[in-house]
Amino acid sequence: EQPCDDLVEALEWIGTSEMTWIEVRGLDDVDSLRRMTDRLGLHGLILEDIVHLHQRPKADPYDDHLFIATQALQQGETVETQQISMIVGNGYLISFRNALDEHIEPVLNRLRAGQEHIRRNGADYLAYALLDTVIDSFFPVLESYGETLEDLESEVLGLNEEDGMQRIHALKRELLMLRRAVWPQRELVNSLLHPETPFITRNTRVYLRDCYDHALQLIDMIEVYRELSGGLLETHLAATSARANEVMKVLTVIATIFLPLSWIAGIYGMNFDPDVSPLNMPELRWFFGYPFAWLLMLGTAAALLIFFHRKGWIGRKSFSRREDAHGQNE
Amino acid sequence: EQPCDDLVEALEWIGTSEMTWIEVRGLDDVDSLRRMTDRLGLHGLILEDIVHLHQRPKADPYDDHLFIATQALQQGETVETQQISMIVGNGYLISFRNALDEHIEPVLNRLRAGQEHIRRNGADYLAYALLDTVIDSFFPVLESYGETLEDLESEVLGLNEEDGMQRIHALKRELLMLRRAVWPQRELVNSLLHPETPFITRNTRVYLRDCYDHALQLIDMIEVYRELSGGLLETHLAATSARANEVMKVLTVIATIFLPLSWIAGIYGMNFDPDVSPLNMPELRWFFGYPFAWLLMLGTAAALLIFFHRKGWIGRKSFSRREDAHGQNE
Amino acid sequence: EQPCDDLVEALEWIGTSEMTWIEVRGLDDVDSLRRMTDRLGLHGLILEDIVHLHQRPKADPYDDHLFIATQALQQGETVETQQISMIVGNGYLISFRNALDEHIEPVLNRLRAGQEHIRRNGADYLAYALLDTVIDSFFPVLESYGETLEDLESEVLGLNEEDGMQRIHALKRELLMLRRAVWPQRELVNSLLHPETPFITRNTRVYLRDCYDHALQLIDMIEVYRELSGGLLETHLAATSARANEVMKVLTVIATIFLPLSWIAGIYGMNFDPDVSPLNMPELRWFFGYPFAWLLMLGTAAALLIFFHRKGWIGRKSFSRREDAHGQNE
Amino acid sequence: EQPCDDLVEALEWIGTSEMTWIEVRGLDDVDSLRRMTDRLGLHGLILEDIVHLHQRPKADPYDDHLFIATQALQQGETVETQQISMIVGNGYLISFRNALDEHIEPVLNRLRAGQEHIRRNGADYLAYALLDTVIDSFFPVLESYGETLEDLESEVLGLNEEDGMQRIHALKRELLMLRRAVWPQRELVNSLLHPETPFITRNTRVYLRDCYDHALQLIDMIEVYRELSGGLLETHLAATSARANEVMKVLTVIATIFLPLSWIAGIYGMNFDPDVSPLNMPELRWFFGYPFAWLLMLGTAAALLIFFHRKGWIGRKSFSRREDAHGQNE
Amino acid sequence: EQPCDDLVEALEWIGTSEMTWIEVRGLDDVDSLRRMTDRLGLHGLILEDIVHLHQRPKADPYDDHLFIATQALQQGETVETQQISMIVGNGYLISFRNALDEHIEPVLNRLRAGQEHIRRNGADYLAYALLDTVIDSFFPVLESYGETLEDLESEVLGLNEEDGMQRIHALKRELLMLRRAVWPQRELVNSLLHPETPFITRNTRVYLRDCYDHALQLIDMIEVYRELSGGLLETHLAATSARANEVMKVLTVIATIFLPLSWIAGIYGMNFDPDVSPLNMPELRWFFGYPFAWLLMLGTAAALLIFFHRKGWIGRKSFSRREDAHGQNE
Repeated sequence: EQPCDDLVEALEWIGTSEMTWIEVRGLDDVDSLRRMTDRLGLHGLILEDIVHLHQRPKADPYDDHLFIATQALQQGETVETQQISMIVGNGYLISFRNALDEHIEPVLNRLRAGQEHIRRNGADYLAYALLDTVIDSFFPVLESYGETLEDLESEVLGLNEEDGMQRIHALKRELLMLRRAVWPQRELVNSLLHPETPFITRNTRVYLRDCYDHALQLIDMIEVYRELSGGLLETHLAATSARANEVMKVLTVIATIFLPLSWIAGIYGMNFDPDVSPLNMPELRWFFGYPFAWLLMLGTAAALLIFFHRKGWIGRKSFSRREDAHGQNE
Repeated sequence: EQPCDDLVEALEWIGTSEMTWIEVRGLDDVDSLRRMTDRLGLHGLILEDIVHLHQRPKADPYDDHLFIATQALQQGETVETQQISMIVGNGYLISFRNALDEHIEPVLNRLRAGQEHIRRNGADYLAYALLDTVIDSFFPVLESYGETLEDLESEVLGLNEEDGMQRIHALKRELLMLRRAVWPQRELVNSLLHPETPFITRNTRVYLRDCYDHALQLIDMIEVYRELSGGLLETHLAATSARANEVMKVLTVIATIFLPLSWIAGIYGMNFDPDVSPLNMPELRWFFGYPFAWLLMLGTAAALLIFFHRKGWIGRKSFSRREDAHGQNE
Repeated sequence: EQPCDDLVEALEWIGTSEMTWIEVRGLDDVDSLRRMTDRLGLHGLILEDIVHLHQRPKADPYDDHLFIATQALQQGETVETQQISMIVGNGYLISFRNALDEHIEPVLNRLRAGQEHIRRNGADYLAYALLDTVIDSFFPVLESYGETLEDLESEVLGLNEEDGMQRIHALKRELLMLRRAVWPQRELVNSLLHPETPFITRNTRVYLRDCYDHALQLIDMIEVYRELSGGLLETHLAATSARANEVMKVLTVIATIFLPLSWIAGIYGMNFDPDVSPLNMPELRWFFGYPFAWLLMLGTAAALLIFFHRKGWIGRKSFSRREDAHGQNE
Repeated sequence: EQPCDDLVEALEWIGTSEMTWIEVRGLDDVDSLRRMTDRLGLHGLILEDIVHLHQRPKADPYDDHLFIATQALQQGETVETQQISMIVGNGYLISFRNALDEHIEPVLNRLRAGQEHIRRNGADYLAYALLDTVIDSFFPVLESYGETLEDLESEVLGLNEEDGMQRIHALKRELLMLRRAVWPQRELVNSLLHPETPFITRNTRVYLRDCYDHALQLIDMIEVYRELSGGLLETHLAATSARANEVMKVLTVIATIFLPLSWIAGIYGMNFDPDVSPLNMPELRWFFGYPFAWLLMLGTAAALLIFFHRKGWIGRKSFSRREDAHGQNE
Repeated sequence: EQPCDDLVEALEWIGTSEMTWIEVRGLDDVDSLRRMTDRLGLHGLILEDIVHLHQRPKADPYDDHLFIATQALQQGETVETQQISMIVGNGYLISFRNALDEHIEPVLNRLRAGQEHIRRNGADYLAYALLDTVIDSFFPVLESYGETLEDLESEVLGLNEEDGMQRIHALKRELLMLRRAVWPQRELVNSLLHPETPFITRNTRVYLRDCYDHALQLIDMIEVYRELSGGLLETHLAATSARANEVMKVLTVIATIFLPLSWIAGIYGMNFDPDVSPLNMPELRWFFGYPFAWLLMLGTAAALLIFFHRKGWIGRKSFSRREDAHGQNE
């Protein structure tokens, strides 16, 4: 375990012990990297893949080493990916990552602490350990999405139309991104599981099987979350549509009651001259004319209210209780 | 059939008879488990898989034994999974499960009763019997969902918008979880069916084929239920939209009838002075002025009612009968 | 061709001629069946599969015979499945079916009539003939669904919201069930086509290829019907939404015309005292006051009607013709 | 190139030259066909496939010939399929088609003209040429659907709800049928590409690769058209919903303006007696009472109009321009 | 590097150096092309594929050369494809493209500049370089769609119904076309990766692997964009529906407040004669009659406003703030 500034010099260590791990932090000094990879006889494409930071996770076998590029997730304010590349050769592993990504540090420390165990198991076991770390870095992110999903589910009935829509879509978008990030990880691990892949011993493959199970579990969970957020969207749309229908009902109830009442009032506001003919609005001169008009109007209103009640548009317990719940939620 | 507290001691029995079944209940004493698995020379990952209780069902072949982890369903108030792990070796099967899961007990008792038959058929047959038990534990759960689905189908026309939505989505969510649980079971049994899998004899494979058929049937049923609950959702949305349309129709019918009537009443409420000119509202002084106004209003209403009737918005038998049905449902 | 009550005795016939067909009708006498299957040395699972009547169609090869279970469709008032199981051995075929299922009788009679041809072709050819019969039993059912689909398509514009929804969903549900029934049939025939399947001669495989084509055609048709009923649903929803929009338009047209008119009438119903000031409603004392008010109202109405006409909301030929068509449909 | 009425006699020609093409037009004389196929030693199923006119396209290899059945499209008023069957043997090809299908004639003439070239290339090349003709017969049909799609796309904003729905669904339905027809063609050609298929020489396979590319292109195009018509449907629904919303807006604007105005008018239509108390409607006797009422009403209207304008419901340029466009479209 | 007008003459150069690259610009002189391909002994189909400009990307291996056809994207005002065909033989590559497509020129120049490197690596490396150029030509197009998508996302809440719909669908349509263009590219590169493909050396395959990764990345991105534009559509529809609901709410609030008020005004506009009976509208002669009526009306309005406020239909901060945002957006 030695810090070393000159990458090429570091290569001297390969072969001096059973297993050498060279950890390159910082990918800015491309010249040194180039000298290093040239010394190792690496293909020119590998250097490109190392410094170009948005590689699709992949494992490329070469004649005398295996190149692995993968992406860990780091959850700060936003979720960010950080690329970790590895060259697995006989008795050595060289890992490359950006110097600024400090999040993965503690995990790597744990790996370093267990180096004794790793040394016995060889470079491919170390590669597995790194891949496992990378895949495990997805779980906390996924769990935070799971919590967002649960929050949304409990709030969904009280959400504003567009606001809810946007929050649900933001979640869907993030799950989509996560899914896009996990699939190639699964393919990567799967390709390492194939017996023909060189530089992966049979012993390490047992561990990779475990790693593969984790990737499958991630994919399972993401798919479940995606379907749930799809269902959430439908519930949200149904809730907003239910509220629109309720607005409609209120309008209908009020309009349907007051339009006939206004009409009745309008009738007795007509100016037909009762003096001209006994047929012209005799009600106006009835003794109980005004109470009669009120009776007419109240009767009409009552009939309509009973009609609406039987339709289930007003006065349902469940309906009003639900309303109260809304009133508190919003 | 002997109870035994010391797991390591129990291992002594292996080899003393044709077939030894060690059943480990309770996974809390990790130390004993570790000593036991070390004694058997098991890979470290197996112990992890045994005590970590949410494994994806899987079968991992090792050199001298086969490790199987699976999840049974237990339906109490909620549906819970309980992990059953097995190590199938030459002449022995060791099964592990949580001590608290008592639900599976009666089924295991039946297995124990038929141990004579199992002893003849070897450890892999016992493994099949356990897997079959596990897969059969899905059927009652699925059936209860089937009943929920039927209930919802018969109630769907009378359900409140959001309430129906949430109940249907709860069902969809549970079917999603069940599907997620069954698929790996199917893969697990399928992987055991492959002729290359060690520790599964040709004879047992005939039984596993049956088990595989059950898994396929489960998946078939779940897919059918999922599609049906999707259709249910559409019916529910159509029903709520039909009810909204009906509210709309009532509003339209009432408003469209009373607005013209109110207008007519309004006209004869105007205060143009009939004294000034014979053109100014002569109706007000007609002998039949008031009856004429009524005739006008009733005629308008009748014309509109006929128009609506021809549109099919009012007075349709099927419509009102359906309404009654609703009135009773809700 | 001999009736025989004792199943075990019937087995004696095997080997006496080139090809023996034992047809077992009625699966209630489990004891006899068990004695029979034991005599033939059949695996215990086969008997279970024979008497348990909702097997997934499948072909299980055993060492000295092939077990086939399949489901024919019988269309009475509802569509019902009836299980037909077969054991294909060297020079014999034993078929099992429920005694009560009489529908398939005439088809079997035709098979029996052609037994000479079958005898020459062996037990596997007979198995093909039975499978072909089973698959052909799907076509009339599918055709009846096709007719239902066509009926619905011609009625869809006139259907009540919920009624249409339910009829379309009933069809979708039945197509789903049919699809679920056909897929395993296809897999069954496909597995028999594989050259490694024993007990199927190369000659019979030519016929099974034909049978496989029929299964594919069934699946094709079911998928097409499913997509068509999906499109039907969309058309239905669009039609109900179009009708809701039309209700809306009528409401809008009427309300938008009569609200301004009522307002004008309301203005001249105000009681400002013309005696107090010449500015207070001088119209009321105009000579042409009342005709002026009418002109105002009719002018407003005409302007609005022209506006609506230009919007295409009223008076379109196509629109009203379509309406008439509806009026007649409903 | 000789016409010949007796099919069996025609068979004599086989072998007299390098390559014999017998073209059978008309499939009504089943007896002759049977004698012919018997003479050639064809399997009984082949004759069935030839005369039964709705075969799924397929290639069935037999010991001494290859049977190909395929479906060409003929676009008259409606699109119709016509079955072309072929038997490809050593040095001969026999093609069968319905006598009434004259559409394919000119294409066949071109083939006949190039017979010299075909003679050199053998029966399998002729089979390729026929298959290529069949697949090319799909392109004009697909192109006409493409034009229908473009027409619909340019008209979609002006289409009536149900009319548009039905036209789009008719297109979707036809694309579905076309897709159903093309897929087996692709499988057919693909199966002929497999090196194990007998009677197809390596040389012809180069041409079939081209034919396969065409089939893939067809499928690509159909899928694209299907997605486009799906998008068209969504646009159509959005357009009809936009128009419904516009109706709603007009209603709201008018109702919201005139209801308050009517109320104001109603207030001053009240008959409280100004003689009884100075508090009772003193406005009625104000000098500027009537102008004041007008001011009140116009002010209210103006405030509402400004509110609606700020909401973007009225007076937007883009909105009215769009409206004009509609007015012209419809 | 020599310009040469006679294609056939150019062929003479093949073999004179390690690696010859003949670049044919312009495909109009079919005669020369035919003479050239005849001289090389190319299959007739190749010439057809070269001059027919809408080939599906593909790689066809022949005995002594490999034919590759592919489509580059060129983004001018619209996105256009331009076909590049290649014949890869021993020691030579002939590329064909339309003379008018000048866009790809600078890229080819760069290739020409690096010819030294290419010469060492052979014709297949040059073919890789061209394919890589072609696939890289997709990225800027995809990025411009990505920007369109982001623009739409930030504008989606303020978009007009139909306008937004059409812009989103235009994007979806273009992504669909792009996807249709990329998939065969991926298949093409994949087929070149298969070890059996002749004329591709193991060394070049390492580079093609990189090219394949790029194709996968393109497909990944297109799928993500497609899902995002699907989500955008849903958000857009939800936003327009939210606006429609808001219109509804305004209508309901106004109508529900003013209908009762108008009714009250209407009541006191009735003409029952207070002289006839003390029961006939005594309010009209109350001292506080008019203020009482106002109190009644204001009280009703206040009660309704409180009701609406508690429903959350008016006066919510978030609601009005959102409104302001809209007002500015639109």
